[in-house]
Amino acid sequence: MSRLIISLDVDLGERSYPIYIGQDLLKDADIFRRHIASSQVLVVSNETVAPLYMQTLVDTLQGFTVEQVVLPDGEKYKTLDILKRIFDRLLEKRFDRGCTLIALGGGVIGDMTGFAAACYQRGVNFIQAPTTLLSQVDSSVGGKTGVNHPLGKNMIGAFYQPRAVVIDISTLDTLPARELSAGLAEVIKHGIIKDADYFAWLEDNMKYLRALDAEALAHAVEGSCIIKSRVVSADEREAGQRALLNFGHTFGHAIETGMGYGNWLHGEAVGAGMCMAARMSHLLGWLTPDEEARILALIEAAGLPTAPPDLPPSRFLELMSVDKKVMAGQLRLVLLKGIGKALISDDFPMEVLRQTLESYSA
Amino acid sequence: MSRLIISLDVDLGERSYPIYIGQDLLKDADIFRRHIASSQVLVVSNETVAPLYMQTLVDTLQGFTVEQVVLPDGEKYKTLDILKRIFDRLLEKRFDRGCTLIALGGGVIGDMTGFAAACYQRGVNFIQAPTTLLSQVDSSVGGKTGVNHPLGKNMIGAFYQPRAVVIDISTLDTLPARELSAGLAEVIKHGIIKDADYFAWLEDNMKYLRALDAEALAHAVEGSCIIKSRVVSADEREAGQRALLNFGHTFGHAIETGMGYGNWLHGEAVGAGMCMAARMSHLLGWLTPDEEARILALIEAAGLPTAPPDLPPSRFLELMSVDKKVMAGQLRLVLLKGIGKALISDDFPMEVLRQTLESYSA
Repeated sequence: MSRLIISLDVDLGERSYPIYIGQDLLKDADIFRRHIASSQVLVVSNETVAPLYMQTLVDTLQGFTVEQVVLPDGEKYKTLDILKRIFDRLLEKRFDRGCTLIALGGGVIGDMTGFAAACYQRGVNFIQAPTTLLSQVDSSVGGKTGVNHPLGKNMIGAFYQPRAVVIDISTLDTLPARELSAGLAEVIKHGIIKDADYFAWLEDNMKYLRALDAEALAHAVEGSCIIKSRVVSADEREAGQRALLNFGHTFGHAIETGMGYGNWLHGEAVGAGMCMAARMSHLLGWLTPDEEARILALIEAAGLPTAPPDLPPSRFLELMSVDKKVMAGQLRLVLLKGIGKALISDDFPMEVLRQTLESYSA
Repeated sequence: MSRLIISLDVDLGERSYPIYIGQDLLKDADIFRRHIASSQVLVVSNETVAPLYMQTLVDTLQGFTVEQVVLPDGEKYKTLDILKRIFDRLLEKRFDRGCTLIALGGGVIGDMTGFAAACYQRGVNFIQAPTTLLSQVDSSVGGKTGVNHPLGKNMIGAFYQPRAVVIDISTLDTLPARELSAGLAEVIKHGIIKDADYFAWLEDNMKYLRALDAEALAHAVEGSCIIKSRVVSADEREAGQRALLNFGHTFGHAIETGMGYGNWLHGEAVGAGMCMAARMSHLLGWLTPDEEARILALIEAAGLPTAPPDLPPSRFLELMSVDKKVMAGQLRLVLLKGIGKALISDDFPMEVLRQTLESYSA
């Protein structure tokens, strides 16, 4: 296969930026140079990804003053305390406002590096170089950055856009199968909420994706980035439609918080959460049994859980109520009126939510 | 005197907001209600200001769910660690995205509360209620928020605009004289950089300001807020002209860092810093001896230092080079071509800077 580079644009007015998708892009000096503002570059990665790809990227950045910060790997390190290490290095090395931060890793590294870039001297450049499927199709696009708080996920953060997103799909070759599945959760989500044809394509191609077929992966990443960037362009700060991207996430966050961060992968929790949202949509009479079954089947084919862990419904409700999607006490959920047709609703009987939760605790 | 309320608008497009200036505004429920979005309100203050004004404000906010966070007082507590206490309370009380934070205190409280509001759930409402002259004429207008790092001041932060600034000049009655003087440094700065008439008015009225004459204070606060908000409106993110507001600050920050935060008040350091910038402008042949003398005389009349502490020139230069105003290694300073005529320059012989520093270490 010839070397494939797809380039998309996220349209956000003066904050617009390109997404590059292709093989071996971490070796592409031209792409990185185009989006670095001065000689000072800090690459932030973690203990898992750095041994695999840091040297490749540092070699690509020859000619720049490159510093490295390697953080411990895992959602539980996505905290203000660990974030400080990035600020410490930037200050120790006297990096100025013209510097560029590059996030080399998954969603945690992207969120933390982006938040550090948003806050350092009130905002410096950054580039996302996501190395997991989840971060390639989800967190690297859209400008959400931040860290967790012991009482809630992503509670401290900023909306901050990168200068560019460089998606090297070759990095998926080293991704554990469980994490590939977790990324597929968001890919499937994009189909479910916005695009029935893309959903059908995923049904046909799930086996190729799981076998790491490069062409299939590039197509899936492109499709997901297009859907996500369209939604984000229309609603950068989540005043309305952007909340559709939270499909499965209110349930999913409750699972993650209830089980302790990191025990379930985010994508696994979202997989189960999407099944719960589909179940609830079905119980509301909005989704046919066949549509619910197709959703469950695709999530299962991706190697994801289709039901939540054993948490009492009362605990589940409690966990859902600290979610950011709660406005003035009223719970809002993303629900379905069909595959490709999601909506945001606070107009449902609480009874149906309870029924949904109870259907799993039999 | 009848109760005086002046209302100005800071024009920043969709982020525009009003500034109210007057007596007893902390008791004005109408003004606060107008800018609070939901029932949840958190007032952040410090151990010095809270005993004086917290109860007054809480009484004014009757009908809202009001939580309070009282932080230790002082620049040395302007840290990420102390900032966490605000997040902890917001999460413990399950405050959602619709909540409003009110900063009741000086610049440290305003900067920290604003930064917390910028980051909490990626951005919630906030109102500035500054109680020191410095914060009334300076930090509460313009949207700069943040905390310090051991290696530099205001190194971690965000540009984030309040919904409103409520300036109750009655709070100046309890302000220590030393802090009043510190605030006058910024008032004088606004005249020096932008408005020779306002500077002349300050020369005539300094004695009334120091005697806390309400009418003179209201006029000075209004004049300063007008100058500052015009500069900020024209350049919200400090790409160009906004940097004029840093007049005296590159020297001043070096003094603050060199002496340890909190030993010199910010305004005192800026007072001395402005004298240094005036001296340097004079040595460059840009400012007449008479103009330099008028600047020194007004700063002295305000009760401020007119020279830096005893720091070796080499140490001073080192301290200046980590300042945010350094672009790619080249030092940029705000200098004068006359009273009311400031400019940003990196086009000066380093020798003149050294000469300026040495003129104080004789």
